[in-house]
Amino acid sequence: MRIRKKKWVNPFIEQEQKYIVKDQRLKGNWLKSFPYRKLYLEIGMGMGDFIVGSAQRDQSILYVGLEKEATCVAKSVIKAQENKVENLRVILNGADEILDYFDKEVDRIYLHFSDPWPKKAHAKRRLTYHTYLAKYRKILQDEGEIIFKTDNSSLFEFSLQEFLDCGWRLDDISVDYHRHPNDDIMTGYEKKFVELGQPIYFAVFKKCA
Amino acid sequence: MRIRKKKWVNPFIEQEQKYIVKDQRLKGNWLKSFPYRKLYLEIGMGMGDFIVGSAQRDQSILYVGLEKEATCVAKSVIKAQENKVENLRVILNGADEILDYFDKEVDRIYLHFSDPWPKKAHAKRRLTYHTYLAKYRKILQDEGEIIFKTDNSSLFEFSLQEFLDCGWRLDDISVDYHRHPNDDIMTGYEKKFVELGQPIYFAVFKKCA
Repeated sequence: MRIRKKKWVNPFIEQEQKYIVKDQRLKGNWLKSFPYRKLYLEIGMGMGDFIVGSAQRDQSILYVGLEKEATCVAKSVIKAQENKVENLRVILNGADEILDYFDKEVDRIYLHFSDPWPKKAHAKRRLTYHTYLAKYRKILQDEGEIIFKTDNSSLFEFSLQEFLDCGWRLDDISVDYHRHPNDDIMTGYEKKFVELGQPIYFAVFKKCA
Repeated sequence: MRIRKKKWVNPFIEQEQKYIVKDQRLKGNWLKSFPYRKLYLEIGMGMGDFIVGSAQRDQSILYVGLEKEATCVAKSVIKAQENKVENLRVILNGADEILDYFDKEVDRIYLHFSDPWPKKAHAKRRLTYHTYLAKYRKILQDEGEIIFKTDNSSLFEFSLQEFLDCGWRLDDISVDYHRHPNDDIMTGYEKKFVELGQPIYFAVFKKCA
């Protein structure tokens, strides 16, 4: 999501001390540094609706949101502040840089409604392109998993093939995720699609075969 | 599809000499006995729209339709007769019996809109249950493939998981097959779903990893 950056955003991010992780010294040490039992990472958290809501719901888990749009990061932090969320940190950066922040220590990665980059020439930018999957493999624990959701059928098909070709194991799949009730926290984007009756595609991939 | 059997059906099937394969001596010898380069098998051909149409279109391939409903077999044969189709044979039997008719000689299996058997207790009856997949593996050539189509999202999800868990390789997938134009021959059943705007799920599985 390309968002116009407001004037207040940069100063806000610079002065914020609690939620925004700015250096990379936590790499390999996240669960030693914070008193939580698991580390869940959302790549491309957008406005943070999912991750802030999820952190509030399960306070035994450390949630980390990655997002390269500064305005999204700032707004997510404000949501966290307003809700006094403790078990959340955010990183202002893109998926390309995850190896700078994480070692083999992530229990779950969420990829939610990421940009489909529909042109073939842009396939490399899709967050499920095999070069990204190789990075995810490095930061996930052995039992780690990726939860993938999209409204875009082409991205879903591409991603499924890419994960399987790279040796990931399909652990769960739905081609119409809201056919059955679930209690996932939905982003505004997901709600809009569900209201329009459009299917949400969902899959879980495990690192280990 | 459970169909009321008409009086003419049994005598028709008994006297028919050309299309209906009644003994199992062709097992292992299909492509030695018929002058075609490949053998494609449809399991559950229903009224035969797909297989008769496909046989007409590509006359270099021997098409074999399997169907356990006698009325369907008889009607398919009548279609073949009317269209003077040469490269088609049909078998009045169910998927349980395929090992009696085929050795490792089938190039492609079609599974089209098979019964979803939605109750968990009936999962064993689904034509993509792993016991069936084991049989398909035995009758397919090394380079063989299965083309699977359904309108039923639950059956699609179940089947994908079942194929992958049994070591098949996903070669192609679509969660909305008619999103892009294709020239497949559609059954009446498929046409109805497409007209209603309901997605058709499609996948191709290869025997070899």
